[in-house]
Amino acid sequence: MLTNTRTDDLKTVSPVERLHALIAADMAATDRLIHARMGSEVALIPDLSKHLIDSGGKRLRPMLTLAAAQAGGYSGDNHVKLAAAVEFIHTATLLHDDVVDESALRRGKVSANLMWGNKPSVLVGDFLFSRSFQLMVETGNLTVLDILAGAAAIIAEGEVMQLKSTNNLGVTEEHYLNVVSAKTAALFSAAAKSGAELTSRNRDFVAAMEDYGNNLGIAFQLVDDALDYSGRQALMGKTVGDDFREAKMTLPIILAYARADDATRPFWKRVIETGNQTESDLDRAITLVEQTGAIQETMRRARAYADQAKTALAVLPDSDIHRALSDIADFCVERAY
Amino acid sequence: MLTNTRTDDLKTVSPVERLHALIAADMAATDRLIHARMGSEVALIPDLSKHLIDSGGKRLRPMLTLAAAQAGGYSGDNHVKLAAAVEFIHTATLLHDDVVDESALRRGKVSANLMWGNKPSVLVGDFLFSRSFQLMVETGNLTVLDILAGAAAIIAEGEVMQLKSTNNLGVTEEHYLNVVSAKTAALFSAAAKSGAELTSRNRDFVAAMEDYGNNLGIAFQLVDDALDYSGRQALMGKTVGDDFREAKMTLPIILAYARADDATRPFWKRVIETGNQTESDLDRAITLVEQTGAIQETMRRARAYADQAKTALAVLPDSDIHRALSDIADFCVERAY
Repeated sequence: MLTNTRTDDLKTVSPVERLHALIAADMAATDRLIHARMGSEVALIPDLSKHLIDSGGKRLRPMLTLAAAQAGGYSGDNHVKLAAAVEFIHTATLLHDDVVDESALRRGKVSANLMWGNKPSVLVGDFLFSRSFQLMVETGNLTVLDILAGAAAIIAEGEVMQLKSTNNLGVTEEHYLNVVSAKTAALFSAAAKSGAELTSRNRDFVAAMEDYGNNLGIAFQLVDDALDYSGRQALMGKTVGDDFREAKMTLPIILAYARADDATRPFWKRVIETGNQTESDLDRAITLVEQTGAIQETMRRARAYADQAKTALAVLPDSDIHRALSDIADFCVERAY
Repeated sequence: MLTNTRTDDLKTVSPVERLHALIAADMAATDRLIHARMGSEVALIPDLSKHLIDSGGKRLRPMLTLAAAQAGGYSGDNHVKLAAAVEFIHTATLLHDDVVDESALRRGKVSANLMWGNKPSVLVGDFLFSRSFQLMVETGNLTVLDILAGAAAIIAEGEVMQLKSTNNLGVTEEHYLNVVSAKTAALFSAAAKSGAELTSRNRDFVAAMEDYGNNLGIAFQLVDDALDYSGRQALMGKTVGDDFREAKMTLPIILAYARADDATRPFWKRVIETGNQTESDLDRAITLVEQTGAIQETMRRARAYADQAKTALAVLPDSDIHRALSDIADFCVERAY
């Protein structure tokens, strides 16, 4: 762990990097454990896992676990096991998502399902999911097992709910928010909460970390969904318009369609309901979500969730880690600009 | 639980039904728990789960858990939670298998992936897998969690290993047996072992149940693979020749190819290596696996594993449950005749 004296030097880097520096030793230990535990005599398993795990993901979720444990003064090594378990759950859901979405790119690389086929992606996802539970069992802590098993069930429910979001202009904001809470925020929340739980600190601290993770997760997904209609996405190694091409009803489209006039409603019906899209449709969709203010409104709401995440932390004593977590909530929204 | 006085009346029914009668109350409780826990506000989840869970599977794996617990004199209710968890793991792997295999039939019904598509099958599998861990957490027993999380990882490894068995005449008997041990026997073994573990009886009992489950599982899979080349399969509500059409190297083909002469080797190369099959090829394959004695040899080995399963039980005191389990090992082989 770094001493506080370095914190000032790090003010100019992103808050994610700043938090990373504060928990650098634990992150390195987590990375070592991740690589050790994704091993298998069946070579395809580490090959495929490595493809995704080493592809430059930010490791935001395990960082929340480690940060919560460190903020709570935890001194054992179960937080590292838990952080690796959280990353394995995340990786497994990405592998299954890509099969489900038939994605071509993931983190700027060809997705595992396109490189190896759907079959290994489903099965390696199952393997990593099982490994995550083995790591949790090693902590010997049934409460964190309960938190993360519950989150895993909620994530799957959210993904199933999301299936209804395709080709369906009738999707409501409420349905969308339920999906986002389940498929994304549940793991952010469980990651932070389980790290806090290890410290056995007071319930207010555990509840604050859970609340922070939940609101950060929703903000994060809202921004992601806005970015899918933004040119900035290309800079981040992701294809723009994935959601659009899948005719998925995310908040930008829900809002743009609610604000559409008679001239543009037939466009949305064609591209979303029938999924019948031509080359130039994405550009028109981007123009429309911008013109109707749907992107600004999506970002406004993301901002509100990020603020709630910061409010959750405000009850906690001031510390470098709390400040970094608070700044991450801001950064999560600001990365879109 | 039934009293022993009914046992004699049940001698004429199959050993599976006889064991079922001995643990009838626990099986009924397990069924209730399964139906309660596959529930979700997301209607597609119970709909799809019910399709598979109510389709007349024998519930053999949860029966092993309950039988082991009862044989060991267990008196709590964690065995019911564990049995439901075992069935959920099994159901999740079936759902993912069918996506992976692109199967059209499962237990005589149209498979879930054909009815609802691959996406819900992957995600509902994930949901049931998560639910299984929630049930295990409720037992509060970290040892059984460890046993079943380990088995789940091994199952996934086995399924990945099995991918190499397609279109590959070079698959060895050793590779095949490793696949069978992992993808099938690991759950039989963990189901029996975890039930025994709950009773905290002596280590010999736990080891015997683990050994029994492992050998029973291998025998079970060998017979299944032999049945895929048998007309009897149709009577059991399964399509004949699934493995053949998928060009999967199971023991009957491994043995038949090893014994093939110059006249038949080109046939195997075409139908397995290139997967280029015509309507009449299955009949020819069935004739060849019979003529070369490959089916008889597969069944002879299944018999040997079933005998090992019985030997494992022989160290235990005589009881109705032990006799029923021993008879199930015989029945598992005899069902093929």
